[in-house]
Amino acid sequence: MTKVGFIGLGLIGSPMCSNLVKAGHEVTVWNRTPGRIVPLVKTGAAASTSAREVAERSVVTFTAVSDSPDVEEVILGENGVIEGAAPDSVVVDISTISPSVTRNIAQRLAAKGVHMLDAPVSGGVGGAETGTLSIMAGGDRAIFDRCLPLFQTMGKQITYCGANGMGQVTKLANQIAGLGTMAAMCEALVFAASNGGDLEAVLGALDGGAASSWMVKNLGPAVLRGDFDPGFMVKLALKDLRLVLESAAEAEMPLFTTSLVAQVFRSAQRAGLGDSGIQAYAKVLESLAGVEARTG
Amino acid sequence: MTKVGFIGLGLIGSPMCSNLVKAGHEVTVWNRTPGRIVPLVKTGAAASTSAREVAERSVVTFTAVSDSPDVEEVILGENGVIEGAAPDSVVVDISTISPSVTRNIAQRLAAKGVHMLDAPVSGGVGGAETGTLSIMAGGDRAIFDRCLPLFQTMGKQITYCGANGMGQVTKLANQIAGLGTMAAMCEALVFAASNGGDLEAVLGALDGGAASSWMVKNLGPAVLRGDFDPGFMVKLALKDLRLVLESAAEAEMPLFTTSLVAQVFRSAQRAGLGDSGIQAYAKVLESLAGVEARTG
Amino acid sequence: MTKVGFIGLGLIGSPMCSNLVKAGHEVTVWNRTPGRIVPLVKTGAAASTSAREVAERSVVTFTAVSDSPDVEEVILGENGVIEGAAPDSVVVDISTISPSVTRNIAQRLAAKGVHMLDAPVSGGVGGAETGTLSIMAGGDRAIFDRCLPLFQTMGKQITYCGANGMGQVTKLANQIAGLGTMAAMCEALVFAASNGGDLEAVLGALDGGAASSWMVKNLGPAVLRGDFDPGFMVKLALKDLRLVLESAAEAEMPLFTTSLVAQVFRSAQRAGLGDSGIQAYAKVLESLAGVEARTG
Amino acid sequence: MTKVGFIGLGLIGSPMCSNLVKAGHEVTVWNRTPGRIVPLVKTGAAASTSAREVAERSVVTFTAVSDSPDVEEVILGENGVIEGAAPDSVVVDISTISPSVTRNIAQRLAAKGVHMLDAPVSGGVGGAETGTLSIMAGGDRAIFDRCLPLFQTMGKQITYCGANGMGQVTKLANQIAGLGTMAAMCEALVFAASNGGDLEAVLGALDGGAASSWMVKNLGPAVLRGDFDPGFMVKLALKDLRLVLESAAEAEMPLFTTSLVAQVFRSAQRAGLGDSGIQAYAKVLESLAGVEARTG
Repeated sequence: MTKVGFIGLGLIGSPMCSNLVKAGHEVTVWNRTPGRIVPLVKTGAAASTSAREVAERSVVTFTAVSDSPDVEEVILGENGVIEGAAPDSVVVDISTISPSVTRNIAQRLAAKGVHMLDAPVSGGVGGAETGTLSIMAGGDRAIFDRCLPLFQTMGKQITYCGANGMGQVTKLANQIAGLGTMAAMCEALVFAASNGGDLEAVLGALDGGAASSWMVKNLGPAVLRGDFDPGFMVKLALKDLRLVLESAAEAEMPLFTTSLVAQVFRSAQRAGLGDSGIQAYAKVLESLAGVEARTG
Repeated sequence: MTKVGFIGLGLIGSPMCSNLVKAGHEVTVWNRTPGRIVPLVKTGAAASTSAREVAERSVVTFTAVSDSPDVEEVILGENGVIEGAAPDSVVVDISTISPSVTRNIAQRLAAKGVHMLDAPVSGGVGGAETGTLSIMAGGDRAIFDRCLPLFQTMGKQITYCGANGMGQVTKLANQIAGLGTMAAMCEALVFAASNGGDLEAVLGALDGGAASSWMVKNLGPAVLRGDFDPGFMVKLALKDLRLVLESAAEAEMPLFTTSLVAQVFRSAQRAGLGDSGIQAYAKVLESLAGVEARTG
Repeated sequence: MTKVGFIGLGLIGSPMCSNLVKAGHEVTVWNRTPGRIVPLVKTGAAASTSAREVAERSVVTFTAVSDSPDVEEVILGENGVIEGAAPDSVVVDISTISPSVTRNIAQRLAAKGVHMLDAPVSGGVGGAETGTLSIMAGGDRAIFDRCLPLFQTMGKQITYCGANGMGQVTKLANQIAGLGTMAAMCEALVFAASNGGDLEAVLGALDGGAASSWMVKNLGPAVLRGDFDPGFMVKLALKDLRLVLESAAEAEMPLFTTSLVAQVFRSAQRAGLGDSGIQAYAKVLESLAGVEARTG
Repeated sequence: MTKVGFIGLGLIGSPMCSNLVKAGHEVTVWNRTPGRIVPLVKTGAAASTSAREVAERSVVTFTAVSDSPDVEEVILGENGVIEGAAPDSVVVDISTISPSVTRNIAQRLAAKGVHMLDAPVSGGVGGAETGTLSIMAGGDRAIFDRCLPLFQTMGKQITYCGANGMGQVTKLANQIAGLGTMAAMCEALVFAASNGGDLEAVLGALDGGAASSWMVKNLGPAVLRGDFDPGFMVKLALKDLRLVLESAAEAEMPLFTTSLVAQVFRSAQRAGLGDSGIQAYAKVLESLAGVEARTG
């Protein structure tokens, strides 16, 4: 069993951490908001008073926070992981953040002899709870191999993606494809509604051929029944699309449809749908088309 | 067994017609270019000299041509189906054409007591040959039921979509979703390539989660190995997107990403890729990004 | 003075025709809706009973109708211009229609020895009334020169644009630039409003430098005071954008921002703004941004 | 005469500073790269060794650097303006940067009793040299009035835009309108070229009516003669568009065509045109359309 640290006990972090505890690892936790620590401690985790202390006690320290500046703060900031981590220990950041910020953090840690993996995840709260997340990891292959048993307590599809930053690049590519697929599905459904189509039949036809996708199967029915509860929130999609567009800018590459999809998501947020699920994208199109894509 | 007519023996029509012959129906065929008739006649179909003659001899007449004007010509033109079709016979158009043109044709046929189904298909040459097409049908439910046994010799997923035109609406919705999904996948792959990503790992990650789709599974690997052979050609995607945008214009609905996807496909066509598969969409992005999304 | 015919007495046609009458030409008129003929006859024009009759009596026949099919009907249809026009007479079509349809009509007329100019105009009802239209003409140079005195009674800036169809191409290019400029101005104003900007100051700054344009000067103030009365209607902009996108499709060229501008105009039409001025484009953006770009 | 400081002697800053010297003000200068100081000193400016020293010696200190972090560094960083500026002195930042960063800097300065104006400029090197810049200023009205005489030595159209940050908001709105207008003009010209249009005639027609703009007048001829020398560089347009899109994101507003224009500019940069003038936007469209919009 491994001495593991876990920093960031949000909606995704808490169940991931819980799975590490259940697997029998010796887990030390810390969270900016102390209240979230309690349930983990009840199941056997040890509380600590800072990110630094977590790192001091751990061989592998996970960070699961929101955005690039948060990761920089808990790892590189005052009382941060870098102050406590021993040489040859590992920091695994499962947040979705900027690939270039990731590389900078990895270099800073490397200068102290500390290894890093960027290992953003996909699969939502459900996947975190059931230990079936998809994990996309970047960093040294040997370090990835060392951490693999830990990943296996939390995820099902675990992909080694290359050097530091490549986990993030892979995650962002995943968001481009996934959100774009959902956008296309929404345009298809609202188009059909605008033309008086039988929406159940349309969704069935989509699902049966070359237009089929996870989105058609999972979020298509949600749109038709008017269920805009979040699996993945509009505001988080916007955060990820911002990272995508920033990375594309750094790589000097144009992203045509993705930049447009971001504008429609922004319209959704402006319409008060930031906390809705990403399928609320359809509501923006419906509003512009003056029609609703609902059944029943 | 039914007296069936088949007009239009192209890449999709020929194998569909062949499946009707194999199923034991009495099939009469006609094609503008006579050469394509020969192979069908060898397998047992009867040749005829005009669309009118086909209709005279058939209880159900299929039309499988290219675009709205072609369908109008073979059904409503001189020596067309309408001149030969008996009252209570059925015309089934499997071409992908304009929903509003479809409704006009159906009305003209109805005035002579002839029924019509619009039944565009999806699944390509492969699906036509193996009898596994997806068929999306519009028209009277009773007429659909009457034709179902014939559809079952040609397709696997057969969806009743509503009144005349709704088969076309469903097919066009299918193209919006499918082509948009492919466009999103291409942006994801070229983004990853621009950022030095391990493309096999990226495609694997996409395929394992919420970004998964038929396109990721089938055309993603084609892009990575540089295979731009057509399943479905760029020029036909452009034809379908034209129908989509015209129908959206008639319904006064905006289609944001779809109209942009059409512009990128046009760039592909302009670059000489009209006869390539739709995955050649990636080549336009690659050219703009100055990178190729290839492995090996 | 010349024997002139004028077919199509709409909002633009009537004042253009009136200017020809005032200039002393012998003008014969026809209009599908007879009521519109009366005012012209009162000022000295001669009424006739068909497009054919107009052409029989005229050396130069103007057509001023709506769209490609209308022009085809009055020129090539039953009792159309082509039946009455004498060899070496001229047909001048001032409608904005498809360049390729224009070329077809010119060829059909040429087969009878009749010349054609396509001469779409810009400048609206106001420009038509004051004889200050911009006229963009395609056809033989010698025929253009022959008609120049007539054009000079109706327009100020008269441009010879090349062979038949090139007047239309030039007009469509004009619409791309003009509508796109207006779209950019609207995004600028709504952006400023969303950020709490002083909109008068913003418009003044735009007008004073490299962002200045006819649109900023003329329609910017209209947006700020909430005046959406039509100079040029949304529904006509959509018609022209359809012609633009069809011509671009024929030329196999992509039009990125223009295709997007068309979608926003469609949203405007869907929101009931088809008869508003094109500056109602701003209202779609305002609705999405949850803000109004108004002063006072 | 006023004791004026000037920090940042780039292509725009140097001639602006020079105009202050010529007007008789007592000017102290500093630049990160010392070489650029020499020519100013020769004309009568005093050199200094840090931004702090400039502020110590000045009643009004101008900063003219590149981007938000640069402004933060020279004003708030070590040896920065904030360390030297006396209470009631003024800092005028003429750089184009983020409105929200601007407001933060203004607050930090205000806490020390130092006033700030954000006063980004438009008009390029030419406008800076001839003292005909357009200046868009945000901050307290009284402070603006106090600085007006200084602005008048450098600019012609000087607009008071509201509170701190509003100069930046106005400048960014200006970039949305200006760059979008240029994009629309480029699409018009490449459309015309794709259709075989007479490009001189097209440009003339555009210039004569509702599509006319500063861009048509100034950069249209440059495109047609193949002159892609910079007035304003592609890479700077991309920087400004980044600021625009970030500000729009903060305000939760969608920007449809602008986000697309940014992607085309990125394609231009990727094609090695970052140092070309913004009219190189046309080259991306030309490449996609397989045609050049040139005359002669």
